[in-house]
Amino acid sequence: MSLVVQKFGGTSVADTDRIKAVADHIARSKRSGDSIVVVVSAMGKTTDELLHLANQVSKVIPGREMDMLWTAGERISMALVCMALAEREIPAASFTGSQAGIVTDELHTRARIVQVKGDRIRSALAAGLVPVVAGFQGVSTANDVTTLGRGGSDTTAVALAAALGADRCEIYTDVSGVFSADPRIVPSARKLPRISFEEMLEIAATGGRVLALRSVEFARNHHVSLLVRSSFTWEPGTLVTEEDPSMEQPVVSAVTSDATSAKITLSGVADRPGIAAALFRGLADRHVNVDMIVQNVSHDGTTDISFTAPKDDVAASLEVAEAMRPSLGAVSVVADDDVAQVSLVGAGMKTNPGVTATMFETLAGAGINIEMISTSPIRISCMVRAEVAERAVQVLHAAFALDT
Amino acid sequence: MSLVVQKFGGTSVADTDRIKAVADHIARSKRSGDSIVVVVSAMGKTTDELLHLANQVSKVIPGREMDMLWTAGERISMALVCMALAEREIPAASFTGSQAGIVTDELHTRARIVQVKGDRIRSALAAGLVPVVAGFQGVSTANDVTTLGRGGSDTTAVALAAALGADRCEIYTDVSGVFSADPRIVPSARKLPRISFEEMLEIAATGGRVLALRSVEFARNHHVSLLVRSSFTWEPGTLVTEEDPSMEQPVVSAVTSDATSAKITLSGVADRPGIAAALFRGLADRHVNVDMIVQNVSHDGTTDISFTAPKDDVAASLEVAEAMRPSLGAVSVVADDDVAQVSLVGAGMKTNPGVTATMFETLAGAGINIEMISTSPIRISCMVRAEVAERAVQVLHAAFALDT
Repeated sequence: MSLVVQKFGGTSVADTDRIKAVADHIARSKRSGDSIVVVVSAMGKTTDELLHLANQVSKVIPGREMDMLWTAGERISMALVCMALAEREIPAASFTGSQAGIVTDELHTRARIVQVKGDRIRSALAAGLVPVVAGFQGVSTANDVTTLGRGGSDTTAVALAAALGADRCEIYTDVSGVFSADPRIVPSARKLPRISFEEMLEIAATGGRVLALRSVEFARNHHVSLLVRSSFTWEPGTLVTEEDPSMEQPVVSAVTSDATSAKITLSGVADRPGIAAALFRGLADRHVNVDMIVQNVSHDGTTDISFTAPKDDVAASLEVAEAMRPSLGAVSVVADDDVAQVSLVGAGMKTNPGVTATMFETLAGAGINIEMISTSPIRISCMVRAEVAERAVQVLHAAFALDT
Repeated sequence: MSLVVQKFGGTSVADTDRIKAVADHIARSKRSGDSIVVVVSAMGKTTDELLHLANQVSKVIPGREMDMLWTAGERISMALVCMALAEREIPAASFTGSQAGIVTDELHTRARIVQVKGDRIRSALAAGLVPVVAGFQGVSTANDVTTLGRGGSDTTAVALAAALGADRCEIYTDVSGVFSADPRIVPSARKLPRISFEEMLEIAATGGRVLALRSVEFARNHHVSLLVRSSFTWEPGTLVTEEDPSMEQPVVSAVTSDATSAKITLSGVADRPGIAAALFRGLADRHVNVDMIVQNVSHDGTTDISFTAPKDDVAASLEVAEAMRPSLGAVSVVADDDVAQVSLVGAGMKTNPGVTATMFETLAGAGINIEMISTSPIRISCMVRAEVAERAVQVLHAAFALDT
C-alpha cells in the first residue's frame, strides 16, 4: 500500500463533468488499496475571473484582499470533488490551506511555504478518508490567508508529499507528460517516460510550461518523485525523479524555446573593475530577474555588456541603465524584445563535448544567427531572432534525432 | 462617536456597481466619525448557483462540504468590498466567520452560534480599520467551516453587534423598511418608522420577509436595536427596538399573510386524555414544525383535531398521523394545502379587546370564511382559503385605517 498525492490542475477540474471524471479516477486509485491525498486548483479560469472582478471594483487591490478573493476558487473545486467522491461512496473531506497547516510567510499573492503541519491530513488518512486539500493557498504566520503565486498548487502538492512522506506525487494536467519539444512546434516530438530533476529544472527554466520551476526545485530538494500525467487520457506520463547513475543518459533530452525575455545592450562601457558589479547591483535592487549576461573583450578601453531579462522588467532595466549611464561611461542603452531563447537540455551533455558544435552547425546550416550564448553543465541556450525560434527548435530536434 | 454594525444582504452587493455604492456609503459613515463594522452576504444569487453546481456534481451532498462550498460566496463579496474601500482610502480588512471568532455547533448548513469571540474584530477597530466580516458562516467547535442557515447573515450581524456592544445594527436590504402590509398586495401600505421587537417577531413569524425570525429573536434577547434600511435609496428605514412604555401603542401595526403552511385534520378522534399528547409527540419526533392547533368540543365521545405545518412537512405529518390513526381512533386524516394565514399584529392589541371582533366582522363583510383561529397577546391569525388571502389583507388594512 502506497501513499500517493494526486494534484489536479485547473483544466482537470474545469467543469462538473471533468470533476466527475477526476472523482472516478480518485475512487479507482483508492479502491486499488493506496492511501490518496488530493490537491486541487480552482476550476478552469476562476482565478482570472476573480481578478477581473477585482479590477472592476477597484484600482487599488490590497494583496491581503486579493488572497481572500482568490482562495474562494479552490474552496469551490475541492468541495465539489468531495461531493462527487461521496456519491461514489469514497469518504472524503476538504481542507483549506489553513486547515491543512500550510504555513507561509506574509508576502501576499506570492507567499513562500515556511512549514507544512498537516496534522488534520494525517488524522483524516488515519480515519480512512481521502483528504482533498486546496492548492495554491496557505495561512501566514499572522493568521491571514495567503496564496503562493504561479505554480502554487504544484508546490502545495509537492510540499504535502514531502511532509507526509508520500511514495509519489502525481501531477494531473491537460498534457500527457514532458515532451522532447513542444508538440505544437514539433509534431513528431516524443513523450519522455523518465527525466531527471536537473533536466526538468532546465526545461522549466527555458520555456517548458508543464511544471513550474519552483515546484520542481521543491521536489528535488525534498526527494519527491513527480509523475506528470493527463487527466483527459489517463495514459502513462513522465516520471521526474533522481538521475539514475547506472544508466547512460541521453545526450539531449529536449529542445525548448522561450520568447518571454528581452535583450538589453549597453555599448561603449568603460572597461574597468566594478562596472558590471554596479550595474547588476542596481538591477537587483529593482528586482529585475537577469538571466543571460554577455560581456565581450574590450577594444580601446571600452566594451559592450548585454543581458536578458523578462519583458515585464524592460522598463525598470532601462531606467536603471539610463540612470547609471554617465557613471558607467556607456555610449548608449538599447532594448530589443524581438528575441527568443532556444535551448538544448540533456543530462548526458556533461560527458559529450560535441553537442555545442553540432548545435551551432545546425543553426548555421539553417541560416539562423546566434546573438548570445549561455550554458550550464546540462544545457546550451542561444538567443536568436524571435521569428526564427520555431524553425530553430525544429532543426535542432531533427539534428539530435529526438523524433519518434 | 458610535460603534455601528452595517449588514449588507445579497441584493445590496449583487454586482460590482452595487458594491461600489455600498463602499461609498460605508466611507461616508466612517468619515462622519463612527466606528463601522461591516457584515456582508454573498453576491446576489451566488448561494443558489453554488447549490446548483453541487447538484450537478453529485446526488450525495455532505453538509460539511456544502458549507465549504457556500462559504466561498462571502469570501468574494467581502474581499471586493474591502478593495472598493481601499480605493476610497478607507483602510479595511476582511474576516471569515472563523477569523471573526463566530463559533458554532457542528450542525452543518444550519449551525447555531455558541460564542462570538471577536478578538480580531476588536483589534482591527482599535487599529482604525473597517472590519468586513463574512455573514452566514462560522467555525464549529470541531474546527470545521459551518453555515448558519436561513437568515444567517442577519444573525451574524446581530451577534457581532451584541458581542462588540455596538450602539446599533443597521440591516441594509432591497426594501426601505417594515411596512403595514406587503406593498405588492396593499399599494397604500405605510412604512413603519418604529416597531417593537415583539411586533417584529410576530410579523416575521406570520409572513413578513424583511427580517428572519431568528435574527429578531437574537436582537431582542441581546437588546440590539435594528435599523432596517434600503441600500438602493438610503432613505430612513424602520427602527426595531424595545417597546416604549411612555407611548400609546398603535392598536394594529401591520397585516401579514403567509401561504407556506398546510392544514391537516384528523376526524373522529377519541376524546380521552393523552390523545393529543401522543399525536404531537410523534410529530415532534419527526421534526414537524406545528404552528396552529385547534381541537373543538367533542360530540358522542369523538372530536376533530386540526393543525397547521409547513407544506414541506405535510408528507411527514401524514405518515405520522396515518401510523397513529388506529391508536388515536381517528376516522380519517386529510391534508389541505390550499390555505393561507392572515394575521393582525399590534402591541396595542393587548389593551383593546375590540380588535378580534372587528377583524371577524370585516372578513365576514367581505364574504371570507375563517377556518381556524389562533392568537397571541399582540396577534390574531385566521386561516382562510388561499385564493382570498390577498383580499383579506386588503380589507383588514383598510378597516384598521393603516393606509397612508
